[in-house]
Amino acid sequence: MAEIPKSITILGGTGNLGRGLALRWANSGIDIIIGSRSAERAAGSAAELNEELGSEHVRGLVTEEAASAGELVVIAVPFTAHADTLSAVRKAVQGKIVIDATVPLVPPKVARVQLPEGGAAALRTQETLGEDARVVAAFHNVAAAHLAELGHAIDCDVLVCGDDRESREVVVALAERIGMTAVQAGPLANSVALESLTPVLIWINRNRKIPGAGIRLTGLDG
Amino acid sequence: MAEIPKSITILGGTGNLGRGLALRWANSGIDIIIGSRSAERAAGSAAELNEELGSEHVRGLVTEEAASAGELVVIAVPFTAHADTLSAVRKAVQGKIVIDATVPLVPPKVARVQLPEGGAAALRTQETLGEDARVVAAFHNVAAAHLAELGHAIDCDVLVCGDDRESREVVVALAERIGMTAVQAGPLANSVALESLTPVLIWINRNRKIPGAGIRLTGLDG
Repeated sequence: MAEIPKSITILGGTGNLGRGLALRWANSGIDIIIGSRSAERAAGSAAELNEELGSEHVRGLVTEEAASAGELVVIAVPFTAHADTLSAVRKAVQGKIVIDATVPLVPPKVARVQLPEGGAAALRTQETLGEDARVVAAFHNVAAAHLAELGHAIDCDVLVCGDDRESREVVVALAERIGMTAVQAGPLANSVALESLTPVLIWINRNRKIPGAGIRLTGLDG
Repeated sequence: MAEIPKSITILGGTGNLGRGLALRWANSGIDIIIGSRSAERAAGSAAELNEELGSEHVRGLVTEEAASAGELVVIAVPFTAHADTLSAVRKAVQGKIVIDATVPLVPPKVARVQLPEGGAAALRTQETLGEDARVVAAFHNVAAAHLAELGHAIDCDVLVCGDDRESREVVVALAERIGMTAVQAGPLANSVALESLTPVLIWINRNRKIPGAGIRLTGLDG
């Protein structure tokens, strides 16, 4: 079993996905550092989460300091802030596992796949951060609305892609820690599938007027 | 309810996916034309299917003639034959629904997403065939091995992408006709998700030593 990090930084922790992950991991006893471009907003989000949980597992810091403070770093920023965030934290994340949950949505057509040059945002992350950052793509397809309610079971498998098996295993363990089923899904190049599935789920949500479609893998028992 | 075509041409009907679709649709009473670059192989495949089913719903023709003969055309050729097939059938498919099930696998690394220039094979299909072909992407993620056994239930949802809603509805009906659950998944641009999911499923099959991982959507009931 992979070792769970003692602290996790969540960049974009004031957004829906980041906030939901922060809430659930903090609730499981992991120290969380919320990172935001505004130290004040980061601290405000942290205070809210601590109040909701009745504990002191969460603190807030400005992006660069937050990235330095956590043992593992999650990138859950809007796609428009992705490139700037990568540049800002490049030094701080060397040697660390970096979970990239960024979905390359291009408003207003967020129900249409519009991949960036090169195929996947996560590949850009690896390229920008350099080979000493252990980039793993995960959590793209989880409905953020459901994640934010602690009592709501997540009816969606977490696909986990990355070039380093050990890092993938840590991310699988982190997903399982908060009650999700996670499945290793291959090299980082395969993150195209994860990133492009989210606009599809958004399209299905709109077409069927439902709050959060997800996916489950089948046939895993052979 | 969308109207089911009376005849379906399957290009690449001698391959695993094409053969499985031919078998199931023929078994449901639809006339099938197997298309292949070799008229002899097409006829041989057709004879085999008719023998297996104990009926005469299947015949074989060379690619161009096959494409002209069917009311709807399915492209299930290996990616290496995709471009040549499109050129060969361009005229024959004008005005028809064309289901593209091609997965852009690039051997030997078939468990790694390697999308073509422009993002999705299905987009190239639309571009090559022109706007009068009603291109719909579907059936990429169904395990071909399971499809070929008539008694084997398909534990995988069929995601259906295309720019024309009416065409998508016909394809959904065709999938349901052979016992599958099909879900409309947006414009043809979203076929990137379908095409890139297949290498991920192949990777999971290898990693877990299982024959056919698939996916199911969740949360569809709201």
